[in-house]
This record gives sequence, structure tokens and C-alpha cells, in this order.
Amino acid sequence: MTTGHTQADPSSWHLPHGFRFAGLHCGIRSEGDRKDLAVVLSDRPASAAGVFTQNRVRAAPVRVCQQRLPASDVRGIVICSGNANACTGPQGLADAQRMTALAAEQVGCREEQFLVASTGVIGRPLPMSAIEAGIPSAISAAAPTAQGLNDLAHAILTTDTVIKVSTREVTLAGVPVRLTGVAKGAAMIGPNLATMLAFVFTDAGIAPSDLAPLVSRAAAVSFNCVSVEGHTSTNDTLIVLANGAAAGPRLHGDELLRFGAILSGVCTDLAQAIAADAEGANHLIVLEVEGLRTDAEAHRIARTIADSALVKTAIFGADPNWGRIVSAAGYAGVPFEEEQLSLWLGDLLLYQHGVPQPFDAATASAYLKRERTVHIRLRFTLGPGRCTFWTSDLTYEYIKLNAEYTT
Amino acid sequence: MTTGHTQADPSSWHLPHGFRFAGLHCGIRSEGDRKDLAVVLSDRPASAAGVFTQNRVRAAPVRVCQQRLPASDVRGIVICSGNANACTGPQGLADAQRMTALAAEQVGCREEQFLVASTGVIGRPLPMSAIEAGIPSAISAAAPTAQGLNDLAHAILTTDTVIKVSTREVTLAGVPVRLTGVAKGAAMIGPNLATMLAFVFTDAGIAPSDLAPLVSRAAAVSFNCVSVEGHTSTNDTLIVLANGAAAGPRLHGDELLRFGAILSGVCTDLAQAIAADAEGANHLIVLEVEGLRTDAEAHRIARTIADSALVKTAIFGADPNWGRIVSAAGYAGVPFEEEQLSLWLGDLLLYQHGVPQPFDAATASAYLKRERTVHIRLRFTLGPGRCTFWTSDLTYEYIKLNAEYTT
Repeated sequence: MTTGHTQADPSSWHLPHGFRFAGLHCGIRSEGDRKDLAVVLSDRPASAAGVFTQNRVRAAPVRVCQQRLPASDVRGIVICSGNANACTGPQGLADAQRMTALAAEQVGCREEQFLVASTGVIGRPLPMSAIEAGIPSAISAAAPTAQGLNDLAHAILTTDTVIKVSTREVTLAGVPVRLTGVAKGAAMIGPNLATMLAFVFTDAGIAPSDLAPLVSRAAAVSFNCVSVEGHTSTNDTLIVLANGAAAGPRLHGDELLRFGAILSGVCTDLAQAIAADAEGANHLIVLEVEGLRTDAEAHRIARTIADSALVKTAIFGADPNWGRIVSAAGYAGVPFEEEQLSLWLGDLLLYQHGVPQPFDAATASAYLKRERTVHIRLRFTLGPGRCTFWTSDLTYEYIKLNAEYTT
Repeated sequence: MTTGHTQADPSSWHLPHGFRFAGLHCGIRSEGDRKDLAVVLSDRPASAAGVFTQNRVRAAPVRVCQQRLPASDVRGIVICSGNANACTGPQGLADAQRMTALAAEQVGCREEQFLVASTGVIGRPLPMSAIEAGIPSAISAAAPTAQGLNDLAHAILTTDTVIKVSTREVTLAGVPVRLTGVAKGAAMIGPNLATMLAFVFTDAGIAPSDLAPLVSRAAAVSFNCVSVEGHTSTNDTLIVLANGAAAGPRLHGDELLRFGAILSGVCTDLAQAIAADAEGANHLIVLEVEGLRTDAEAHRIARTIADSALVKTAIFGADPNWGRIVSAAGYAGVPFEEEQLSLWLGDLLLYQHGVPQPFDAATASAYLKRERTVHIRLRFTLGPGRCTFWTSDLTYEYIKLNAEYTT
């Protein structure tokens, strides 16, 4: 399975200064060798901003983070996997707050300086005794190393098959700064947002009020353009911490915009990796939709195609069934006429200005059988609006994973 | 597989007077024993009204019917399966018109007095030589018999496993009248409408201007409340013909409303049968959503749950994963707070006012394993709005059917 542009090899990672990482098994999961608790610590107070699920039903850790962000003095995040702490009523909220209080006590700061995230099964109470014992161990173990980040990246996974890490080192305002993004997500992936959990840590110096809009923009072009099955999670979380440990100046103007573009790039790497590692997926499907009146129209059409089970099973079956793609575009709620649409599968033009084109079905099918990454392009003649969207095919393995998930 | 309240046994059917039916193999399908062409003829001009797909991409036969309806003098419908005549450009439109012209020529009327419908693969030209030979044969064979209707009901099927027929005989304005509904649909089923093809024939006398709103209302509470995978077809068609052959008066006032209620009942039978026969389905899922501000809000929540692959795979896996149901409700775009929601699976209360309830998972799982028809009830505390919605579970067989459909 491809991991997009993410980096599987820890020796290639650029680690931001002033952060420590850990991941370990505390007992949320029954498998004794499966990590289920992670922490990231910032040695100094960090600017922090986040974007969260738009589901009306928000998990307890999401509610806690939304109360606390944006912030100027965050010291760390506690993350658990195996249990989402969602739909858990008042007890769930108390448990999420307690996780931050325990971490703050260890570090010696206020509980409001910690954030919290969870992913896993919905509707079960957290096993707090395991978590209460695990948090001090994780904080003791936290290290400013690739091994630490690797442990964290593994500890946040659920049905993911690979870790997702994307790092960059760039010079901004004359000083080298580093960004490290880490994500998990394999199902219940549908805008807005997409991945259930994503974190980016940077040692650049950025004011919280400058960071928040950059995070929103990065989410819009990355995680909001990924869908596995369109089911918006209760736990979707993107948090960015910027601690200034690179010792450069606070970024402003052009340098701030450059940082924003790099942040978007890291988030796009992670979003693609989530689609590529979607539960049971054989293919990463890249949808390029262009020529609509607005980007929002293009996004709406792309998302509707990405959410179509009929399109996704056709790709799985190596069937160049462009009719399903055209008809999915047709019910996206965006006005167009058939003659305003042309469609390519890879390099093959299948449908031009509303008329089916003769093509060699065997060539098209061979393309779908051969390529892990499948490109579908729709070109309309209505304007400059465009969107790139990532999704996956729908397979027997997806059914198996999701029919047997809880037990 | 249950067929809802439809009638599998032709000897139980109430046939409307003045209609003749036929279905035969003309050669659209390669399997020689598979019927693929049907006609219904009305001995006298019939009032006719229809409701069609809201997809921007409309099949050629849909465009022809929309031009001709409502009408006061329809003499029949030609229907083919195996080829949708969708996304076929100007040639497709000419072919659809030609089908009506051929039928009209045989019967001796204007081509505008015939309607046309198609279902099957998208984007392939119709094999017109086979159809041109088949239409006269079908018209010659048409008979006012249960055998004729049975042939028609079979000829319109694609991946359906059973025919769907629902009939009624009632006394209106002192005269017995009959309604006969027939439908097909097993995938690409998503509002609005739901079933790809449905037809109701009645010998009641109704003015076209009275018939059209009754047909819209019947579709709203039946076919628009069914979803298999939410993919709105290019071909969705509901046509109702009322020829007055029962020799009663034209219906007005209360009798007209009674007729409308019976028409809605016939359509609901057919809609349920479509969900129950959904491709690869093991379960018919009945969603009862109540207590919203409006019926439209309840419909939106029900449809979002029905379209969730995660909910549908959980039901397939006999997993009482109510968290997926609650979270699907949460992203439907309808404002509510968790504490305003309670949820039942069958008779089991799983979630009350935002708090998970203790329940015996084995009992819940046994219910899902035992029952063909699964009931899920969501009760909100926001108002009188309600909706009943039908869908199916998502299975390995669905993937198999849709990955291998075209070839």
C-alpha cells in the first residue's frame, strides 16, 4: 500500500526542537503488545490552534479542546486509541478533563495547558484506571527522538496498516524551522474534516491569532478533500502546536504565508496517506474536478463521486464504468448540462461534451488493475473552480473490517 | 428474502380493466431466456402523470416522458431492461423517441401517446434492430391477464431477485376500481426518487391535473424514503396511468383523496420491496425517526443514517453499534444536542437522552442475526416531525455484484 508522500523511515524525519514524544501500551486495548496511549510535550508554552469535526455529536475530548483553543501556552497533548470517548455522557467529559489534569500535574502546569484526543469505539466508558497509570509512565518516557515520535505514531493507530508521518525543514526569516505532522485514520473518514486525528508540531514562532487561520486553510485543502465512506466522525481533530524553539523571530507577512503553504503541504501528505490506507482499500483514487463556477462546486461534485459506493466498487472491480461517475456528478446538486462535461480515466478520454467516446475497455481495465493510484479527471466548461480530492475503492475487506469491528 | 407487502402469487392480483401487458426476450440481453422488453397498453386514452429522477444527468427515455407528461390520452408504455439508454447523446434521444413511434404505429395512434422507460447499463447505444423487431411482437402478445403482467414484471428486472407487484381493489364513488403497481430496483437506489422504474395502472377515472399531485405525494412517502447506497439513478421513473375503464365517475373531493391514499399505499409496498431486495442484502432496515421540528428534518436524518456504509456493515455483522447510528445522525446537518436523542434497536433501549444505556449485547446481536427486518428508532424531543425510511445492509454480495456488474 502506498503511503503518498509520507515518510515511513524514521531516520529521514526532521524533528522540531523543544518537543518530546512517547507512545506505549497502558491497557485500553486487550492486546498486550498494542500501543494505545501517547503524549507529546512542548518544553515551552506553544501557540496552538485546531480544527474539529462538524458532527453535531462531538466526542468529549473534542469538546475539551474546543473550549481551550486557540491558546498561547499549550504544554502538550494526551492521546489514546482503542476508545473514542464519544457518546459517553457527562462521565466522558469528566474523564477527558481528568486526562489533561493528570498530565498537567506530572509536568507542573495548569490542566488548561493540556489538550486531549481519542479514537476508537464509540459509546464505551474509558478504562480510567489503566489511563491514570499510563499517563505518568508516558510522560516519563517522552523523548525528543525519532523513536519517541515513532512510538506516538503507532500508539494513535486503530485499523490503519501503516503510520503516517510527514516532516519538513525549511528556512523562514533566516532561521531553519521544522514541521512534523503525524496522523491516523482509516474509516469513518468523511469531511468535514477527514482524518480522525492529525497533529503538526513545529518549532517556528507564530502568534496564536496568526496560526488559527492557517490551520483552517490547511484543513480545507487536505483533510476536507478526503473521504473513505463519507461518515463524518465524532472525533475528527487537527491540532497544530508552534513552540518557537527554533529561536527565530515570530513569523509575519510573506514568511507567515510561506509557513502556511508548507503546513498545507504537510497536511496534504497526511490526508493522501489516509485515503491510501483506507480500510481494505486496493486503490488510492485521485479525483481532479475542474471548470466549475466555484471551488466549492468542484468540491461538492468531487465529494459526491468519492462517496458513491457504485463508483468505488467499479474501481475495485477494474471496471471503467464512467456512467457511474457521470451520474454521481449529476446528483451532487450542482447545475450543469451533460454537454458541459468531459471525463478522463488516466490518459483515456471516455466521455466528451456529453457524448461517450469509443475506447478500448481492455486498456482501461488493465490501467485499473495495474495502478495503485487511479486518476479520474472531470472537466466542465463553466468557470475556473477546481478541486483535488482523494478517496479509495470499496472492497470485500472493507466490509469484513466494518462488519466485525467491535467484537 | 422478504418482499414486503407485495404479492408474489399472480392468482392473487387484482387487474385493472382495459389494460394489456406483455414481456419477452428481444435480444438486448445476451442470455436468450432472459426477458428484456415489456409493453403495457391501455385500450382507451388514459390520464397519465409521472415523477422522475432529480439527477442532472437524465436518461433519454426520462427526457421524452418529461416532455409528454402530464397527459390525458396516453395509450401505453414501452420498457426495456439491460440497457439504460443514459449518457448516450443525441442518438439516445432519437432511439427513445423511435421506440414510442414504433409502438404507436402498431397501435394506430400518435407517437406522443406513448411513453418509454429503460434500465440497465449506462452509456451504451441501444441495440435498435433487436428492439425494432421486438416491439411489434410484444404488442401482438399483450394480454389483459395475470400472465401478461407477470411477463412484464419479469422483463423490467435487472439484478432484482424477485418481481415486485402490489395490487388493490377498492370501491370508490360506488364503483369497484383496481390499482396494479409494478416496480424494479435493486441498486443505484437513492432519493430522489428511489426505485429506478415503477408503474401503477388503474381503471379509476381521474383528470390529469388531479392525478399529478397525487403521484408526487405518493413518491414522497414511498420511493423517496428508500435508499440502497444513495446513488441517484439517471433513470428513476414513476408513471401512473388512469384509464377510467371501471366505468365509474371521475373522482373528486374525498373520493379522490381516498384514491391518493391507496396509491401511496401501493407505492409504499413497492418501495419496501425494493429495499428488501437490495443487491446482496440480508436485511431490510426500517428507520423510524421522530420528534424533529419538521418532517423534512426527520427525512434528512433518516437518509443520512441509511446511506452510512458503517451503519450498514454493522447491521450485516450483527453488531449493535449504536454509536455509528448516533454519529450518522450528527452529520446530517440538522441541529440537535445529544441529550435530545434516544435510540432503540428493536425493543431494546440503547441510548437515552444522550447517555448510553446498559444492555445485553448478546440479546441485541441475536436480534440482528434472527430478524430479516430490523427496526431502528430514533426519538428526538424537538417537535412533531417524523419519517419512516427503508434501507438494506451492506454485504460482501453487494461488492461482488457491483464490482462485476458490467462485464
